[in-house]
This record gives sequence, structure tokens and C-alpha cells, in this order.
Amino acid sequence: MTKTMKTISTLLAVACLLATAPLFAQTDAEREVAARLAGGALIDGKAWDKLAYLTDRIGHRLSGSEGLAKAVTWTAEEFKRDGIPKVWTEEVMVPHWVRGKEAARIVAPVEWDLALLALGGSVGTPEGGITAEVIEVDSLEQLNERKDEVKGKIVLFNKAIEAGFDAKYGYGSAVPMRVVGPSRAARHGAVGMLIRSLGTADFRLPHTGTLRYEDGLPKIPSAAIASEGAELIHRLLASGDPVKVHMELGAKTLPDALSHNVIADIPGREKPEEIVLIGGHLDSWDVGQGAHDDGAGCAIVMEVMRLIQKSGMKPRRTIRAVLFTNEENGLRGGRDYEKRHGHETHVAAIESDSGGAEPVGFGVSAGEGGVAMIEEIASMLEFIDAHRVASRGGGADISPLRVHGVPLMNLRQQSFNYFDYHHTEADTLDKINRQNLNKNVAALAVMTWLLAEREETLPRNEPQEGD
Amino acid sequence: MTKTMKTISTLLAVACLLATAPLFAQTDAEREVAARLAGGALIDGKAWDKLAYLTDRIGHRLSGSEGLAKAVTWTAEEFKRDGIPKVWTEEVMVPHWVRGKEAARIVAPVEWDLALLALGGSVGTPEGGITAEVIEVDSLEQLNERKDEVKGKIVLFNKAIEAGFDAKYGYGSAVPMRVVGPSRAARHGAVGMLIRSLGTADFRLPHTGTLRYEDGLPKIPSAAIASEGAELIHRLLASGDPVKVHMELGAKTLPDALSHNVIADIPGREKPEEIVLIGGHLDSWDVGQGAHDDGAGCAIVMEVMRLIQKSGMKPRRTIRAVLFTNEENGLRGGRDYEKRHGHETHVAAIESDSGGAEPVGFGVSAGEGGVAMIEEIASMLEFIDAHRVASRGGGADISPLRVHGVPLMNLRQQSFNYFDYHHTEADTLDKINRQNLNKNVAALAVMTWLLAEREETLPRNEPQEGD
Repeated sequence: MTKTMKTISTLLAVACLLATAPLFAQTDAEREVAARLAGGALIDGKAWDKLAYLTDRIGHRLSGSEGLAKAVTWTAEEFKRDGIPKVWTEEVMVPHWVRGKEAARIVAPVEWDLALLALGGSVGTPEGGITAEVIEVDSLEQLNERKDEVKGKIVLFNKAIEAGFDAKYGYGSAVPMRVVGPSRAARHGAVGMLIRSLGTADFRLPHTGTLRYEDGLPKIPSAAIASEGAELIHRLLASGDPVKVHMELGAKTLPDALSHNVIADIPGREKPEEIVLIGGHLDSWDVGQGAHDDGAGCAIVMEVMRLIQKSGMKPRRTIRAVLFTNEENGLRGGRDYEKRHGHETHVAAIESDSGGAEPVGFGVSAGEGGVAMIEEIASMLEFIDAHRVASRGGGADISPLRVHGVPLMNLRQQSFNYFDYHHTEADTLDKINRQNLNKNVAALAVMTWLLAEREETLPRNEPQEGD
Repeated sequence: MTKTMKTISTLLAVACLLATAPLFAQTDAEREVAARLAGGALIDGKAWDKLAYLTDRIGHRLSGSEGLAKAVTWTAEEFKRDGIPKVWTEEVMVPHWVRGKEAARIVAPVEWDLALLALGGSVGTPEGGITAEVIEVDSLEQLNERKDEVKGKIVLFNKAIEAGFDAKYGYGSAVPMRVVGPSRAARHGAVGMLIRSLGTADFRLPHTGTLRYEDGLPKIPSAAIASEGAELIHRLLASGDPVKVHMELGAKTLPDALSHNVIADIPGREKPEEIVLIGGHLDSWDVGQGAHDDGAGCAIVMEVMRLIQKSGMKPRRTIRAVLFTNEENGLRGGRDYEKRHGHETHVAAIESDSGGAEPVGFGVSAGEGGVAMIEEIASMLEFIDAHRVASRGGGADISPLRVHGVPLMNLRQQSFNYFDYHHTEADTLDKINRQNLNKNVAALAVMTWLLAEREETLPRNEPQEGD
């Protein structure tokens, strides 16, 4: 077959698949447009190429870094190269934390180098490091129960997590230990904090992430260690031996740095003042390439914009892409966006921030009837298994829009392997499959177009207090 | 249930399972002994505890290291503590290679730190390291085809392998590149050699292993890099950019060091001069804990000896455990054993050197009828799925015994995850499951006992030239 014949036959296949989906309120015109967008994404998608530039050529992108500055410039230029009518950046001052040199080692009863990454925002240790006995707990509750034993020690939070975001057994179950653990430990006199990495693979690979020091308490040096070291400390303690660790962190926080949100609009033809926002975050941690987190989200959003623009179709409402800065350690990009644009009419905001694996559907937090409306649209995506709708949705960067009652959504990816790589040196492009990215683009393009095009909009939420 | 009741009920269950196995030549007495040994291994096995000492308390054990010396002393003492009647060590001079500091980095067209481990035996670079353009090949054949492009460059062997030992797609397919690749590259003027790690997981984890320099060719610095770096170099080269790497290795080879094979005999009651040898190797690479490779094999062998000794039964022939030194980078232990003991009558030699995952059976290289005999014995192990017999067997350390026609066997473990961890910092105790080790002990104990006890012995091989 020639390339054109292949393209036509694939488009026909896509159209047939879409035609077999349940109909509900879908019109023939809608399905035709959806087929066109999805077909374009699947056959000729450029998301992986965009992601390849962002990861291989620019690299990781922590707030304050040269990488993030380059990413701001390159993505704005790329939107322009793709012909998006309105592209601009908005200044945001962001935290500027630098890792420095770091090392940790079990020094008694045996010697063992710990693979570690300081938690983002951690203070450093004094020159020469600290050495202290380790007390191991598996939860904030257990820390509290054993608070009298903490003084002068390094607290190790040691909980193995399961794959996924689950609040009881998954990533969500351990995040509070990482975020507030350092200050909780400091409150009882700890001199340092370690946490078993919030990851689901065991390859001596530490996973970083942010902490939040509580005002009025000593800031203690805090780091994530790979599972092997956590398991070894557990076994040594279980055998009755006191365990001592030496740790030296060179981390420090510099004055805030200038960064930018990158924004691109395809203005609406009838209701340009009504906005469907799609976004991801441009910053990453300072390890690996930030491929899954969240280079993939940015590439998906950029490619949706390119495809819609390239189609020549003009949506009824404005479609706006926002690549937020500083999601990882401050959320300053999301907050700044709300301050500048919260008064505008956002009819929906969709974030993609759970990696580049195959899409499974959407999450949605909207007023009554919102889930049903999204389910009806998403039913067109059954042919790529991206039609499952969860009745909660949103994302960190768009969460400040809650105060305005904006319907919040997220593009959901399969998360079975996400926490194998999340926030590590191994979050690299080789983990991302081109076809999976294309499927995400197809799903988000169809959803975005219909939310921007249909007469009806998602029912709004009750406006909620900010966090 | 009390502990005793539990023990009895489990033993009964084991006996029932064994009783349902096909009978062939098995006698009731044999099955009773097998049930007793297997039951003891499964209910009260201490292999994991032995391995825990070897890994957590002693650590990795490269030839020439303090760790290996400690392991020799401790395992000999442990055999004595377990009451093995004859325990001794035999001096072996081994290579003494040390890693030193090492680092490598892509310096053009982008910058990227490569995770690497020098190959065992590699020379170091000059102080300050070397910087050169990279040429990528996927095989020794392709290196030959492109030999005119090699001069002055660093050769990267970049082949992804599948799980298992397979000679076409698995570990076996890439080992030749690692072993002879450095000299093949040097022959055509390469200044350095890199190889994509012979591993099956992608977690920025380099896998070391030995190389063998060819006489008369320049020795060039050689290292394994993690998959992420190999993939990145591949992508950069595919885009048409020359790729330059800087590498600095502090590796060097010191004068040979003194080490020991550790040997323990349970003398035979009727034919003490006939020997069933069971063995593993005590040395490991200088990373991780050498848990799968081959702490597990040593622990399994030691525990088989303890169980048989504890049973109070005296085997017809001598059962001999050998913990070989220097398998990883020299095979001096295996060669020395053959020199000293090759003239003795070994009726079988069984090695365990493929990790501590669940057993799947045995491999056997013996004269005609040997496989059938082992299949018949192994049928008793169907209740733990350890009854599959491959028609080739042996192990590196026992391979020198081929010249004497000794029937060679190996205990086979499931190898699906073995090359995720093999020769890495992540080959640690947390990867080894206590019950899996116990099953291996059960399988090896039953096999060893029956080979030592039965009137008939395995048909011998034709004596073969040594390698």
C-alpha cells in the first residue's frame, strides 16, 4: 500500500470503530471530527518527537535550573512553529533549591552505602555530615507512639507501597510521611529524616519528592533512600543491633528565581471568552529526564494543540494550553495562573500529569450530570480503551481554579509502572512508547474539541475554598 | 495447633505428596528418607539465615577482598558448628582486581552522566580520563563489518537481551561481546569499550562482569553502562549527531592474593572413596551483596549438609560440599580443586549457581541413561515443581572435572528475574524469598542423598579435554 492508502484505510477503520460506539447525544458531525482528530493523532502523531526534544536535548527541568528556562523558551517557540495563533509566557518567581553533593552510609553494625536523593527543599547537613542512630517507623502514627525514643536520632519512615495512587496502600498512602515527616520528626528532637523511596521497584533507585517544613520547628536534613537500604536497616534492627547512619547533604535553597508559565490559545470563533484549558507541568525534578513526570503531559497537550490547529477547524470556544512551571516544589505556576486568569470563564480545565503510559480515560469533578456527560463523550474512545471515567478529577496545577467552581478533569493513564520510575534517574524517554503517547493525544484531542465545541458545557462545581 | 502438631501434619502432607509421585525404581525406604529431608528443609530450613549472615554481615566478596576472606572463615566455621565431620580449606591464589573511582559522561551533543561499572579485569584510564567519539554496534559481527570506522573511538556494544540464559536472545547471546569485545575493539584501534549492561530491567542499574584481554593487543578501558545511557546514545546517533563520551576508570590489577576453597565431607559408610560433590561459589562481584550470585547457592549447599548431618543417617558414599573461590573472574577455585582432587572418584558433581528463586529441577550431562535416572529421582520433587530435567548440566566451577568423565549436574532455578539483578548493586538479600530457598534445599537434599545412597551410580561421560 502507498502511504496515502494506508492513511485512508486506517482513517476508515477509526471511523468504523467510532461508529460502533454507543450514540447518546453524539451527532454524525461530532463523530466525523473525532475520527479526524484521533486518526491524525494515531497515524501521524508528533508527541513523542516533541518529548524527545524536551528530554534528550533539554533534559531535566527543576525550578530555577537552566533546563527549565530552556524548556520555557523551546515550548513557546514550538507552539509558534505549530501555528498556534496566540502564544505568550507569564513571569512567575519560583523556589530555587539545589541538591549539591550528597551521600549516606550505614556505619554500624555493618558498613553499607545507601543510594539516596535528598528531598526537594531539604536543608543540608553541616559540613562533614551527621552521624546518628536510626529509629524506624512505618507511619506518622507510629512516630507519634514512639516519640519519646526519637531525640537525637535519624527517623526512618519505612513503608513499602503498592502500584498506583491509592490512599491506603499506594503512593497516596506514603506522601504525607514525605511531606510532613521531617517536621514531625523534628518536633520530637530528631536530627535527620530518611524515608524509604515512594517507589514500586527494587533496583537501588531512590525516588525524590518534595517536603514541607513546618514554621517554628528545626529544619532537619531529609532524604529518600532506595528500598535495599531500607530493607537492610529493617533486618539489622530486627536482629537487635542498633543501626547508625552517617549522612551528608549539600542541599540548599537560593533566592527565588524567575520562571514562566507558557500559554497558547486557539481563540474560539463564537465564544472566545469561554475557555477550555488543557495543561501539564513543564518543570521536573533534577534527576533523569522528567519523561513520565511530566514531559509526557506537556508533549500530549502540545500535540493536541498542533492537531487541532492543523485541522483548520475553529472551535466554538477558546482552547488554551498551559504548561505550568513549578508544580513539583511550590505550585507557584498554578497559583500565579489562578491569580491572573481566575476571573476568566473556564468551562473546563483538564490536566495530564500521570505519565505517558496508555490512556485509560478521564477523571472529572463537576456539578451534577458532569460525569454522565464525560462518559458519553468518552464512549467514542472505547476503541483505544480510553473511555473509563472516574468521578473525581483534576490536577495539582489546576486545583487553584476550584475557588471559581471550574469543572476540573484529568487525563488518566495506566499507572501500574508509573511509580517504578517517578522522581528518579530512570524517568527517561526510553520508558515512553510512541503509540501510547499518540493514544493519549487522540483521547485528549477528542475530549477537548467536544468540550470546546458543544453548545452545552459541563455543570460547574460549587466554588471551594483554596488549599 | 502446637508447633509439633504443625510439623507432624506438614510432614504427613509431604509424605502423601511424595507417595503419589510415579514409582519407577523408588523404594518405600527412599521415599521415607526423601520425605524426611524435604520436610525438614521446608519446615525448619536455615538456608535464608545462613545467606543473611553471608550477605548482611559479610557483604560482597570479590576475589582478593576482605569480604571473601571473612566468608571463607565464616563458612568453614559454620560447617563445623553444624557438625559436619570433616571440614577444611585449601589455598588458592586468585586475581586481585580493584575497581577504584569511576565515572563516564556523554559530553556531546548533550551532557548526561552515564551510570557505569567497569568490567572486572579492566585496566584504568590515564589520570583525567579519555574522551572520544562513540561507534555503536550490536554484535561482534557488526564490529567486524565496521572495523574501518573504529580507530580512535570508543566502541559501544548495544544489544538488549531477554530474560534467561538463552544463547540467541538471552544472557548467553551477549556474554561474548563482554568477554572478548574489548580486545576485538582494540584490534581495530578503539581506545575504549562500553557495553550495554547484560541485564533485563531498566532502572539505571549497570551490570558488571568479567572481560578477557587477548595477548598481544592493547588493553583498553572497558565498562558496562545502564540501559538508559545506551538508549540515549542510540537515539542521539540515530539523529545524525556524533556522540562523544568522557570516561575515567580507576581500575587496576594488583598481585595475586591468597584465597581458599572451603570443603566439607560427610564420609560414606560403605564407599567413602566415592564422592557426590555439591557446590556453589563463595566469591561475588564487588557490588551489592552477591545474594543471588552465588550466596544463594552456597547457602543451599550448606543447608543440605546440615540437614543430612542432623538426620543422623550415614550415606553409602561420601557427600562433599565445595564452596569454590574465584568463579567470577578466574575460575581458579574450580581449577585448583580439579588439580588436587580430580583423581578421586566423583560419581556426580552438582553445582547451584543460578540464584535463589524457586527451583524448577536439574540439568544433567551424563552417559546414556543418566537423564532417565535423574528424571526418575526428580519425579519425587513434583510436589514443589522441581522435577524438570534438562539434558545438559554442569556449572563453571565443576567444569574442569569433565576431563575425568564425571557426570555433571546443576540445580536449576527459575531465571525470569535473575538478570534483573545479576552482577549489580541490587543483588541483595531482599530479593530472596525464604521459602524459595527452602524448596531448593529440599530438591538438592533429596537428589544428593539418593545419588550417594543408591547402589547404582550415574553413567559416566566420555572424558573431555579441558577448556
